[in-house]
Amino acid sequence: MARVVSLEGKRKAPSLEPLLALCAGDMTQVDREIVSRMRSPVSLIPELAHHLVGAGGKRMRPLLTVAAARLCGYEMRADRHIKLATCVEFIHSATLLHDDVVDVSMLRRGKPSANSLWGDKASVLVGDFLFTRAFELMVEVGSLDILAVLSRASSTIAEGEVLQLVSQRDTSTPEATYLEVIKAKTARLFAAAAEVGAMVAGRNGAERVALESFGMNLGIAFQLVDDALDYSGREAQLGKTVGDDFREGKITLPVILAFLRGRIVEREFWKRTIERLEQREGDLEHAQALIDRHGALSDTLERARHYGAMARDALGLFSDSPLKAALLEAVDFAIDRAH
Amino acid sequence: MARVVSLEGKRKAPSLEPLLALCAGDMTQVDREIVSRMRSPVSLIPELAHHLVGAGGKRMRPLLTVAAARLCGYEMRADRHIKLATCVEFIHSATLLHDDVVDVSMLRRGKPSANSLWGDKASVLVGDFLFTRAFELMVEVGSLDILAVLSRASSTIAEGEVLQLVSQRDTSTPEATYLEVIKAKTARLFAAAAEVGAMVAGRNGAERVALESFGMNLGIAFQLVDDALDYSGREAQLGKTVGDDFREGKITLPVILAFLRGRIVEREFWKRTIERLEQREGDLEHAQALIDRHGALSDTLERARHYGAMARDALGLFSDSPLKAALLEAVDFAIDRAH
Repeated sequence: MARVVSLEGKRKAPSLEPLLALCAGDMTQVDREIVSRMRSPVSLIPELAHHLVGAGGKRMRPLLTVAAARLCGYEMRADRHIKLATCVEFIHSATLLHDDVVDVSMLRRGKPSANSLWGDKASVLVGDFLFTRAFELMVEVGSLDILAVLSRASSTIAEGEVLQLVSQRDTSTPEATYLEVIKAKTARLFAAAAEVGAMVAGRNGAERVALESFGMNLGIAFQLVDDALDYSGREAQLGKTVGDDFREGKITLPVILAFLRGRIVEREFWKRTIERLEQREGDLEHAQALIDRHGALSDTLERARHYGAMARDALGLFSDSPLKAALLEAVDFAIDRAH
Repeated sequence: MARVVSLEGKRKAPSLEPLLALCAGDMTQVDREIVSRMRSPVSLIPELAHHLVGAGGKRMRPLLTVAAARLCGYEMRADRHIKLATCVEFIHSATLLHDDVVDVSMLRRGKPSANSLWGDKASVLVGDFLFTRAFELMVEVGSLDILAVLSRASSTIAEGEVLQLVSQRDTSTPEATYLEVIKAKTARLFAAAAEVGAMVAGRNGAERVALESFGMNLGIAFQLVDDALDYSGREAQLGKTVGDDFREGKITLPVILAFLRGRIVEREFWKRTIERLEQREGDLEHAQALIDRHGALSDTLERARHYGAMARDALGLFSDSPLKAALLEAVDFAIDRAH
């Protein structure tokens, strides 16, 4: 298995903790807002929503929103950034619910998925509910510019999902097409989450552009590392099982690179296992070996590092502060969790 | 089969035509806007969306929006009401796509449903796309008040769908609960469609309240008549097959009334066919006979007439005009299509 060896020897592993610590007060409020906004007299709604939203996950996206707002000097006592962060998490959660139905996923973050517990119908409808709730929150925040950013992001996500549905399981998907899919499906919401943080703080110029770019590049890096982890041995930290993507026939960058670099017999293997989903004992291990042989895992992480570097540089215009340092460390964490 | 005999003999049947004729120019623009907003480089999106949205239906909801705007004197050359009407139709369409997945419906308006042609996954995702597109349109219109009305309506619809999912197939559902469901699922969007028509014309006082009430009551009447038609012989005009609701085990007012008024053996019949979905040859005919015996069909229409009357009266504050007359006739049409 490809492992990237750290050149710096025993340097301390980057962590999300500094960012979480600096945003702890805000994130407690976000948690409270999330619970309060999931309420409904229809008890299935908070039950199912709580299973997904209430039960943790890293809350990367709302964290981005509150951190961006604070980095832009958003006033301490105001709470519009809390509502926006909640809204971003709801959009993300609605997407996950529908995704798991579409992908027939039985697990999410190592736990049974909502659709496996309550069925597809409930997941579709509660997803719709969370999505509409997100828009109600946005309307409360009261900025048409922010609404434009988040509604555009939502529409891009939806378009990306359809694109993935029609292009899925084509092992000859070009890397560029795949990048468009993950930009639309994942990175666009990271970008919007950070961008609206700047906007709510009234920074509509260079800071807004910088934070959007930060979120976009971080999102791409994050997704690429996720892709890599699914074929590496380090997925336990992610709450993923190794080989989830493989078993579902998902096209990700490690597969695309291994397919491109493989000989005819190897391409036949990918077509059988990923396109036709005819998988047998030992196929996952063989897939991992092929990906390793072609350096597809380490090159996927190399690509992730490239986007990570762009994310870091996007913060260049902000003056140094503990919060900025914590955001830079979060980028390193997003990438280094694969090591 | 219960048929309501018209007391007025040969009076001309009420029609939607006068309203359609008066709004023809606007509705042509709405059609154009619908097609233009369904565009996407992902070709499955316009294909699937066109099957549902492009292929007609009565467009009652967008018609309400443009008619309400005009009734409130909305300026002839402006086009915000066109965008809002499109937005309302997209919200409705997204709901239909998800509904058909949840209800496992194979037909919609007498044609194969989108999910039966493209599968559940595509229907869920294209529904999401249309929904997000609707919000983009609202944002373009640029009124936070209007956004609040439509996002609240969307969230109510989603909540209503979940409520129906958890309460479905309980034949002892009280009429009041059922009314709440159809208010949330159907009438709320009729109400919002008419209300935003008033708002875009700048009439935020009594006219707005009146048109909201008009839409709400018309929506309830409309749904009740739909419920009745599913057990009557006149469904061809609706593009419905008789007995769709019965076969899917849907609880509607005719069933609720027949169950309430039925003896134990009849209640057993409803529990077997609707709650347990154990249906055999001849059950639909028996259901129709029971509904007829208890006057459940004519009483459902009687209830519809009650809401129709309230809708008519809601327009009382508007001075007489061909448009007002056409809206009143539309109410009669919504009810009389069952005769």
